[in-house]
Amino acid sequence: MKKRFTILLMSLSLGAFAQKKDASLVQYVKPIIGTQRMGHTYPGATVPFGMVQLSPETDTVSYELNGKYNPDVYKYCAGYQYDDKTIVGFSHTHFSGTGHSDLGDFLIMPTVGQLKLNPGTADKPGSGYRSAFSHQNETAEANYYKVKLDASNITAEMTTSTRVGFHQYTFPKSDQSHIILDLMAGIYNYPDKPVWTYVKVINDSLIVGYRQTNGWARTRTLYFAMAFSKPFKQHGFKKYDARQVYGGFWGKFNQSKNFPEIAGKQIRAYFDFDTQEGEKIKIKFALSPVSMDGALNNMKAEVPGWDFDKVKKDGQKQWEDELHRITIDGDLTTKQNFYTSMYHTMINPTIYMDADGQYKGLDQNVHKAEGFTNYTTFSLWDTYRALHPLFNIIHPERNADMVKSMLAHFDQSPERMLPVWSNSANENWCMSGYHSVSVIADAVVKGNAPFDANKALDACVATARKRSYEGIGEYIDHGYIPNERSGISVSSTVEYAYDDWAIAQMAKKLGRNDIYEEFIKRSQNYKNVYDASIGFMRPKNLDGTFRKEFDPLSTHNAGFIEGNSWNYSLFAPQDPEGLIKLMGGETRFVRYLDSLFTMHLPDKYFAETEDITRDGIIGNYVHGNEPSHHVAYLYNWTSKPWKTQERVRMILPLMYKPTPDGLGGNDDTGQMSAWYIFTTLGFYPVAPGSDQFSIGSPAVNGAEVKVGKGKTFKITVKNQGPKNVYVQKIELNGKPYNSLSLSNADIMNGGNITFYMSSKHK
Amino acid sequence: MKKRFTILLMSLSLGAFAQKKDASLVQYVKPIIGTQRMGHTYPGATVPFGMVQLSPETDTVSYELNGKYNPDVYKYCAGYQYDDKTIVGFSHTHFSGTGHSDLGDFLIMPTVGQLKLNPGTADKPGSGYRSAFSHQNETAEANYYKVKLDASNITAEMTTSTRVGFHQYTFPKSDQSHIILDLMAGIYNYPDKPVWTYVKVINDSLIVGYRQTNGWARTRTLYFAMAFSKPFKQHGFKKYDARQVYGGFWGKFNQSKNFPEIAGKQIRAYFDFDTQEGEKIKIKFALSPVSMDGALNNMKAEVPGWDFDKVKKDGQKQWEDELHRITIDGDLTTKQNFYTSMYHTMINPTIYMDADGQYKGLDQNVHKAEGFTNYTTFSLWDTYRALHPLFNIIHPERNADMVKSMLAHFDQSPERMLPVWSNSANENWCMSGYHSVSVIADAVVKGNAPFDANKALDACVATARKRSYEGIGEYIDHGYIPNERSGISVSSTVEYAYDDWAIAQMAKKLGRNDIYEEFIKRSQNYKNVYDASIGFMRPKNLDGTFRKEFDPLSTHNAGFIEGNSWNYSLFAPQDPEGLIKLMGGETRFVRYLDSLFTMHLPDKYFAETEDITRDGIIGNYVHGNEPSHHVAYLYNWTSKPWKTQERVRMILPLMYKPTPDGLGGNDDTGQMSAWYIFTTLGFYPVAPGSDQFSIGSPAVNGAEVKVGKGKTFKITVKNQGPKNVYVQKIELNGKPYNSLSLSNADIMNGGNITFYMSSKHK
Repeated sequence: MKKRFTILLMSLSLGAFAQKKDASLVQYVKPIIGTQRMGHTYPGATVPFGMVQLSPETDTVSYELNGKYNPDVYKYCAGYQYDDKTIVGFSHTHFSGTGHSDLGDFLIMPTVGQLKLNPGTADKPGSGYRSAFSHQNETAEANYYKVKLDASNITAEMTTSTRVGFHQYTFPKSDQSHIILDLMAGIYNYPDKPVWTYVKVINDSLIVGYRQTNGWARTRTLYFAMAFSKPFKQHGFKKYDARQVYGGFWGKFNQSKNFPEIAGKQIRAYFDFDTQEGEKIKIKFALSPVSMDGALNNMKAEVPGWDFDKVKKDGQKQWEDELHRITIDGDLTTKQNFYTSMYHTMINPTIYMDADGQYKGLDQNVHKAEGFTNYTTFSLWDTYRALHPLFNIIHPERNADMVKSMLAHFDQSPERMLPVWSNSANENWCMSGYHSVSVIADAVVKGNAPFDANKALDACVATARKRSYEGIGEYIDHGYIPNERSGISVSSTVEYAYDDWAIAQMAKKLGRNDIYEEFIKRSQNYKNVYDASIGFMRPKNLDGTFRKEFDPLSTHNAGFIEGNSWNYSLFAPQDPEGLIKLMGGETRFVRYLDSLFTMHLPDKYFAETEDITRDGIIGNYVHGNEPSHHVAYLYNWTSKPWKTQERVRMILPLMYKPTPDGLGGNDDTGQMSAWYIFTTLGFYPVAPGSDQFSIGSPAVNGAEVKVGKGKTFKITVKNQGPKNVYVQKIELNGKPYNSLSLSNADIMNGGNITFYMSSKHK
Repeated sequence: MKKRFTILLMSLSLGAFAQKKDASLVQYVKPIIGTQRMGHTYPGATVPFGMVQLSPETDTVSYELNGKYNPDVYKYCAGYQYDDKTIVGFSHTHFSGTGHSDLGDFLIMPTVGQLKLNPGTADKPGSGYRSAFSHQNETAEANYYKVKLDASNITAEMTTSTRVGFHQYTFPKSDQSHIILDLMAGIYNYPDKPVWTYVKVINDSLIVGYRQTNGWARTRTLYFAMAFSKPFKQHGFKKYDARQVYGGFWGKFNQSKNFPEIAGKQIRAYFDFDTQEGEKIKIKFALSPVSMDGALNNMKAEVPGWDFDKVKKDGQKQWEDELHRITIDGDLTTKQNFYTSMYHTMINPTIYMDADGQYKGLDQNVHKAEGFTNYTTFSLWDTYRALHPLFNIIHPERNADMVKSMLAHFDQSPERMLPVWSNSANENWCMSGYHSVSVIADAVVKGNAPFDANKALDACVATARKRSYEGIGEYIDHGYIPNERSGISVSSTVEYAYDDWAIAQMAKKLGRNDIYEEFIKRSQNYKNVYDASIGFMRPKNLDGTFRKEFDPLSTHNAGFIEGNSWNYSLFAPQDPEGLIKLMGGETRFVRYLDSLFTMHLPDKYFAETEDITRDGIIGNYVHGNEPSHHVAYLYNWTSKPWKTQERVRMILPLMYKPTPDGLGGNDDTGQMSAWYIFTTLGFYPVAPGSDQFSIGSPAVNGAEVKVGKGKTFKITVKNQGPKNVYVQKIELNGKPYNSLSLSNADIMNGGNITFYMSSKHK
C-alpha cells in the first residue's frame, strides 16, 4: 500500500513538473499505437492533415482471391500490421484507421543485388523485393519513420511536407543498388484496379507520371513528380498488362532500358545506382490531384532543397504547434494516449489541393479553392460525432474550410448531395445517414460559419430530401424506412432522424421556420422503429408490422450497420428525454444501460461484429464502433450521472493503451481518438448541432485548451485519480456550477472550470 | 466527231462562264468522292481543319477477330464504306484518307420503337439500332450531311462548327423515340480500347463526359458536352464491363433509370422522347481535349443557339472562303475534282485546342497555345511532300501555326523528337523518316517562318541525331541502316538522306555552317544503298554486302515500306542529277522511268501493296501510295521534260474521278489531293525545302491563286485540252520563260504565268 502511494505521489509530481516543462509534446506521440490488430492506423510519416502519408506496407494482399472477396485484405487497410515480419515497400497515401480501404499509391522499395521486380511472398522474403525487418530497428515518430531492411542492410528513413514525401535510403557499398517504383501495388488492390498509368523520365534524376484507379474511389487519378538526389545510372520499366492488342510503331525504339516513357495498366519501374558504403540516396516524391506539373510545382514550393533533417524538423514543428492546442497535466501513459490521440485526430481529413489551390472536383473538373483549403477523406458517419466538434474548438478555421469543401462537393455532385464519404474527388457513399448536415449544423449553431449559412442549409435540405437515396423517399412518406427497402432500415431511420434534428437546429438559428418545422418533426421519426412490446428498435415492414425474425444481439442482416439493436436502440442523441420516456422511464432506462455494459455477449455475436477486437466490447457495449459513442453519457439524463462518470473512466483505460494493440477498434479517421480527448478532458458532444457538451469525468489533473482568438479554456481537476473518478462539485469561472452540461460559449470565451473529484459518487 | 467537238466547245464555254460566275465553289465539293473502296475519306460534315468531323459509320468492325488482327477493319478507317447498306450511327471524329485508324468517338443514333442498345449486324439490320439507308436519300456537302434512316423513317442531318457537331433528327410520331449515345463504339475498336468513360447528366437536356482510349494514340482522352433541344423524358445507362469487382455503396441508389452519372470501361446511354410527326430533335455535341468544362465553353463560344441552318451556312461560308483561295477555269469534272481536292486538303491536320487556347500536350499536361493555333493529325510521311508546300502558298499562317504546333510537340516530347505522326496529344511513330524537318525547312527556306527558326533547326537536328530511333545510330555510323537493324532499312535510309538535305538547306539559310556541312554530307547517303550491279536500291547488310534475297518488285519484307525497290530506287528528290548519274546516266534513267510506267506488275505483287486499289497502279508506278509522287516530274532533269507533261496528264484522269470510287488509293490526309492541285495548276514541289517547283502540264484553262498579302498568282493556259498536254512555251510576267522550274518568289510575289499548250511535244 505504501509503495503504491509513493508511486502515485511521484506520478502526480512528475505530472505537475511535466506540465510546466513540456516544450515538446511530439515526444508523446507514438504512431505505432493502433498498428496491431484492429486499430488500422499506420506508423509512417505525415504532417497535420497532409496530402502525403508516407508509410511502410508490410504486405500487399489482394482484395480478391480466386475471383472472390479475400477477408485477409481487411487487416491491411492501413498497409501495415505490427505482427508482420516483412516490409514490401513505402507508399505515399494511407487512410488512418478505416475499416475499408483504397490508396497505397506509388510503392517505393530500395534493394541491392540481383534485381527482383516482384514483391515475393512473406514466407519467402528472398523471393522478391520485400525484406524482413524487426521492431528493434524501427522508429516511428510524428512525421518520421525509420527502419532497417534486413535483406539489403539499407536504412530507410522518411519524412514529409504537406504534398511531398521525402525518402532517405542509406545503402551499403554495391554496384547493384536499386530503387523500385511499383505502380501496380496498392491497398485493397485487384487486377483491374489500376486503370491507367503513365511515367515520363524528364532526366536522369527526375520523373513524373500518374496513376488512375478504379477502387473505392471509382475514378481516382493521382499525379506525381519524383526527384532523386543522385542521378541513376540506368532505368527500366516492366509492363504486366494482361494483353496488348496494338503496339503501334513504338518498336522502332529499343524500349528495354532507359526509354523515357511508358504507359499501361500494370507497370513497375526501377532505377539503378552504384553506391558507396553508407551512401545516402534521397528521393522527393510530390503528389498532385491535378497534374504532373502540379506535382512539380508542389515539390518546388514545399521542398526546394535536399535537407532531410530540415523537412523532418519543419514537419515536427507543425505537429508541435498543433499538439500545443491542448496541454494536459497527466501521467506518462495519459500523455502518450492523449497526444497520440491528438495526432490521430489531425491526420484525416486530408488536404486535397495543390500549393496553388487547384484541385480535382467531384465533377472531375479542375477547380481552384478560392479563399479556403480544400479537404477530402471525410468519413462522416464516424467523424460527425466528436471529431468535427473537436475541430470547432481547437481548429475552427480548418473546420470551416472542411465545411466549405463539403459545400464545393455539393456543388460538384451529380446527385446534388453533400458528402457521405468523400474520397479524393469521389463519393463512395459508405455507411449510413447524411451526416454532413450534422457537421454543418454544429458549425452554424456554434457560430463558426464564415460561409453562406443559408446556402449551406439549402444544401443540407436538398440532401435530406433526396428521395432516391437509401430509402429517404419512404422515410419521408412513412416516417421510417421499411424493412423491405433496406438491409439497414433501422440504423438509417434513427440516423436520419438525428440528422434532421441537426438541420432543424440550424434552420432555427437562421430563422428559417418552415424548414425548422419540417425537420424537427422528422427528428422524432426514431420513435417509429421502436417496438414497445419488446423494448428495442426493430425493423418495421411496409405494412406497419415489425419484422418477425429478430434478435437484438445480432448485427448480421438485422436492419443495422456496425451495431446491434441493443446498441442502436439508444441512438437518439438529439432527444435523450424522449428516448427515456419511449423506453419506459428512467428506471427501466438505467437498467437497460447497466445491462448493456455488464451483460455477457456470446461469442457467436462477436463473430458478426466489424472493425473491433474482442477487447473492443465491454459487456455488449461496443466502443470499437461508433454508434454507441454517446451512450455512456446518457446517464446524465437520469438521476444517476455518476454512472456516466464511472463508465467513461472504465472505458478509457480499457480502450486506449499506449501500445501497438492499444486501440480496441478502428480509429476511424480520428473519431475514436476524439472520443478519448473529449472524455479525458471531462466533457463530450452528445448531440453535435446543439451548443452543449455533456459532462463526464476528467482523467487529467488539468488542461489548457487554446480556443482561438488568444483565448484559453482552462481545466483544473482536483484530487483526480484512478479511483477518484466521481465529480463532487464544479466551479465555472470561480462560481459553483450545478449543471451537467457545458455550453460552447463557456468554452470558447475562455475562462476556467474546476472539477473536484472524489472516490465516492454523490 | 462533230458531236464530240460540240461537247468540247460547250464545256469550254461553260468553263469560261463558270469562271466568271462561280460565286459558290462549295457546289463543286463532293465529299462522297473517295468513300468507295480505298479512298478512306468520309462523307460527313466538318469545317476547314475542324476539331469535329461528324460523319456516319456504316459499320463498327473490330480490329480483332478471335484475338487476331481482323483485315476487314481496314476498309473502315474513315467509318464509312459506300457499298454498305446500313448505317450504325454518327460519330464525331474521323481521319480523312488514312491507312490505319483510331477515333470514331461518341456514336449517336436516333431510333424509334423498342429500345435496342446493340448495333446489330449488317445482314440483320433489325437486330440492333442500325438502319438501312440508300444513296438516293443521302446528301453530302461540305459541312452538311443528310440521310434518311429507313428503319425509323428518321431524317438525320448534321453540320458542324470547329468544335461542335450539330445534329438535327426529324422524327415520326412516336412515344418511343430514342437517342442512343454509344460510348463503346469506335473505329479500329477492340475490347480493351476504351480505358475509361464517364458521363454526367447535368439536367434533362445537357450531359457531359469523357472517353479515354488506348489505341493508335496510346493515351487519348476526349471530353464532350451534349445539349438537346428538347428535354428527354427519361434516360438510362448500360454498362458492359467484363467484370466489376467492387461496386461500393452505389447500390443505395436505384441506378437503372435517370441516374445522373456513370463511369466504367464500356458504356452506352439512351435518352427517350415523345415526338410528333416531323418533330425535330437537335443535338449540339461539343468536344474538348482538355475538360468537360472546356467542351461546355466551346459550345457556348461557337454555337450558343439552336439555329441549324445558321451553323450549316456559317460553316459553308468558311469553306467558300477557303476554296476561293484558288479559282480555276475548267470543266465540271475538273472543278469537282479540283474543289473536292481543295476540300480534302483542308480537313487534316485538325485544330486541337479549346476556344480559349488550352490543349492537352504530348506530355499529357494542359498547355495554352500562346499566339498560335495548335494542330494535330500530322501524317507527315504523306503530307510533307505536297500538302505542306501547298499550305505555304495558300495558308501561310496556318502552316506557320502547324510548325509552331510541331515545335510545341518537340518541347513536350519525352523522346525530344519532332512529330512523326501526331495523333491528339500522342505520337504513334507511324511510317518512316523524320519528315517534320522537311516541313520546317520548307517554311524557313520559303521565308514563311514567324517562329524562332534557329530553335526550330535545333529541334530538327536533335531529331535527326536521335541514335536510338529506327536505325539512326547505325545510319550515322555507317551511312546507311543495315538490313539487320530494320525491316525497312532502304526506305528509311533514302528518306533520312532527303530529310538531312532539308536540314542542310535550312542551316544554309540560317548561316549555321557546321550543321549544313554535317547534313549535306548525310544527304548523299541514299547512294549507299544503291546496288550498281543490278541498278536498284537494295537492303545492305552490316558487313557492306547486299542482302541476297531480293526482288525489286516485292514490297513484302523487302526493306521498304509502302513501295517496292522499283519505285523507291527513284527516291532522291533532293538530288535528281546525282541519282541519274548513279543510275547510269540519262538514257538508262529515262528507260527506267518509262519502264516503271509501262511494265506489267503481276498480280502477286499487287497483293502485297497497301492502301491502294488495282487502279491505283499505272504499270508499276504506284500513285495510290506516296513514295513516287515526285517521280513523274523527274523527266524534267533529263532531255525529255515532255514526258513529265505526258505522264502527269495521264495520271490525273486515271487517279482522280468525281465519283465515290474516284480515288485510286488512300487520300492520306490530303496528300493525294495536294498532288492533284499542284499538278492541275502546272507545277509541283519535287523537293520541299528548296524554293523551286518543277513545271508539269496545267490541266485547267486558267487559275488564280491568292498567295497572301493581297497578291494573286495568275495562271493562264492557252489551248489546253485532253490532247493538248504539252507545254510549247511559257511567259512569266509577260516575258518568255525558258526554265522548267518556277521559284517560290515568282509565285508569292504575285504576277502571272502563261502556258501555251500543244498536242505535240517539243
